[in-house]
Amino acid sequence: MTPAASLVFTTLLSHGPLTRTEVARRTKLSPAAVTKAVRPLMELGYLVEGVDEAARPAVGRPANPVWVDGGRALFIGIKITGDEIIAVLADLCCRIRESRHVRLTGREPEAVLPVITALVQELLTEADGFGVRVRGLGIAISGDVDREDGVVRYSPFLEWRDVPLAEIVGTATGLPVTVDNDVRALTVAEHWFGAGVGRSNFALVTVGAGIGCGLVVHGRVVSGAHGVAGEIGHLSLDPLGPLCHCGNRGCVEAIAADPAILHAVRAATGGQVTDMAEALKLAHSGDPGVRDIYARAGETIGKAIGFLANILGPELVIISGEGLAAYDLVSEGIRDAFAASAFGTAAQCDVMTRPLPFEEWARGAAATAIQSFMGSDTYEE
Amino acid sequence: MTPAASLVFTTLLSHGPLTRTEVARRTKLSPAAVTKAVRPLMELGYLVEGVDEAARPAVGRPANPVWVDGGRALFIGIKITGDEIIAVLADLCCRIRESRHVRLTGREPEAVLPVITALVQELLTEADGFGVRVRGLGIAISGDVDREDGVVRYSPFLEWRDVPLAEIVGTATGLPVTVDNDVRALTVAEHWFGAGVGRSNFALVTVGAGIGCGLVVHGRVVSGAHGVAGEIGHLSLDPLGPLCHCGNRGCVEAIAADPAILHAVRAATGGQVTDMAEALKLAHSGDPGVRDIYARAGETIGKAIGFLANILGPELVIISGEGLAAYDLVSEGIRDAFAASAFGTAAQCDVMTRPLPFEEWARGAAATAIQSFMGSDTYEE
Repeated sequence: MTPAASLVFTTLLSHGPLTRTEVARRTKLSPAAVTKAVRPLMELGYLVEGVDEAARPAVGRPANPVWVDGGRALFIGIKITGDEIIAVLADLCCRIRESRHVRLTGREPEAVLPVITALVQELLTEADGFGVRVRGLGIAISGDVDREDGVVRYSPFLEWRDVPLAEIVGTATGLPVTVDNDVRALTVAEHWFGAGVGRSNFALVTVGAGIGCGLVVHGRVVSGAHGVAGEIGHLSLDPLGPLCHCGNRGCVEAIAADPAILHAVRAATGGQVTDMAEALKLAHSGDPGVRDIYARAGETIGKAIGFLANILGPELVIISGEGLAAYDLVSEGIRDAFAASAFGTAAQCDVMTRPLPFEEWARGAAATAIQSFMGSDTYEE
Repeated sequence: MTPAASLVFTTLLSHGPLTRTEVARRTKLSPAAVTKAVRPLMELGYLVEGVDEAARPAVGRPANPVWVDGGRALFIGIKITGDEIIAVLADLCCRIRESRHVRLTGREPEAVLPVITALVQELLTEADGFGVRVRGLGIAISGDVDREDGVVRYSPFLEWRDVPLAEIVGTATGLPVTVDNDVRALTVAEHWFGAGVGRSNFALVTVGAGIGCGLVVHGRVVSGAHGVAGEIGHLSLDPLGPLCHCGNRGCVEAIAADPAILHAVRAATGGQVTDMAEALKLAHSGDPGVRDIYARAGETIGKAIGFLANILGPELVIISGEGLAAYDLVSEGIRDAFAASAFGTAAQCDVMTRPLPFEEWARGAAATAIQSFMGSDTYEE
């Protein structure tokens, strides 16, 4: 697909039925370029054209709306967490048709890969019921991922290093596989369907087991020249702060991620606390030491978002992730530290929260598979 | 000019004479789109086509090279520093035809604006000698600049606030005026003609009177949704560090910019040192306290570049600015701190130094004027 066709396709994905004129206006392409991009996609059945009699002009071409035919193809999206695998079957409009959760019994590739393969087979069987082919599989995983080569270079949670995931799963399932960093995949979904629709410059910050960040600049997700981008979790903000697994001190992740908070709460309370739910309960019961730990986490996240705003000047920062469960405890710190560290008009950036369940991350993985499919030569099959 | 035409034009600016086929390959536009973009630019005389008999194929269209006719239009570029104004007369290829330096006797707009106006008149007279019209004026100034509105919102060095510079100078000179942040303007020049040619993702970090940073992501300069971007000077890296004029502690600028270094050297030596040349001399003579101050400046810059690499993953970081005079004193700190703070493959980013005299900054200002001219409706006149 040409860049223009890809732009037209994603514009129709995000904004639903639009006339060609409206597509041209939104994409800043010429009407001729839009028509040229639309034609082969209509011939292949990925786009359909309706007839809107009311909008038909007295003279000139009819202003018929065009939209993506969601039912024309299916995709599977998988999000791997440290504890479970979430898989969705999504259509070409990235609407979720089926979803599955499976607990993991181990984190090594030998334990995780058979679970993925079994889930994919299950969803392929479901897909048969729809009578439509599954055209691609997207896998989202945290860490340093080389999407082009399909290799998980380093995933700290799973302790994976240099796993050629696309090749392994592709061989096992027969599907074209796209592997991407999980936050980047979620950012694609937010850009196409979420709070990022119509935004050319925004950041998605995820807080929870880790601290992640996906970036859209000039309308496209930033991947980094060497695969690392949006890595705010390892900004070392406090030279005297706690040691991080990366070797530095005072990284955002070493202060504000769930394991860091749990570690600090244990140290402050003498070790009785076993999980985040208990830590949260203690904070909500008013324990001042525990509340301070959350407040510091909030300040650290807010400062990191301020740094992001100073460097990129996004119009919007979306905060999401399972860490939102503690948002009442961290929000003041985030707000104040962001305001203090953002320079000048960078502070005008909107900061919002948005809960996104793990299905949405898996949907992001499916979105990356749709990207790959539409960017490949095989979409014409 | 359409986005495609603008892309074709800047590709020809950067890469000199190219055949249409080569332009299509580099821009990823279709050959038809290139021909469509080239035609009106040739009719207006901004592009010319040569005849390369040797490259003429036996059949098919001739592979004639196309290039920008530099002599077809002139532009003025002005860089304002705290001490002087540097102005250049540049052609459409942004080659410098004339340049001028004028010392400033005051920094308030009332002192600076007449100097700018006089310089522009002088260069307009020079332009008469070339028999070509000056089609635009670009002004580059440090600080928070709203290019769209042509307003200098806040320039700390000059202590300007909300100066509608484009309007004032436009009225005084009769030229279309583009005002931009100076580092962003220099980044345009680096992208078109310097170390950034052919790079889609790079950063230009300038050290000296201030610490600035221009960013190119997905092939375009990042301006920030509200005008602030690349503001690494006000990343507060050391919570216990010296107070910055922005109100925070330990900002990069409060440790590594020239005034901060001078202040620290004075404090360490009892106040005899009056300028950077003396500070440098002391460091080169081996004064350990002064050398430590430079080393700390280097570490701070290196850490900031590491943060930039973690967030954006650029392929290249160019370090420039008058602070390069002390590069032998800061280079080790930059290298080590960058390596320590860059996460994973972000450390693979190339870091290079490149001296760029103030004429080059003024040339960047002229490049922004060319951008505006080519983006305007008046280029067809």
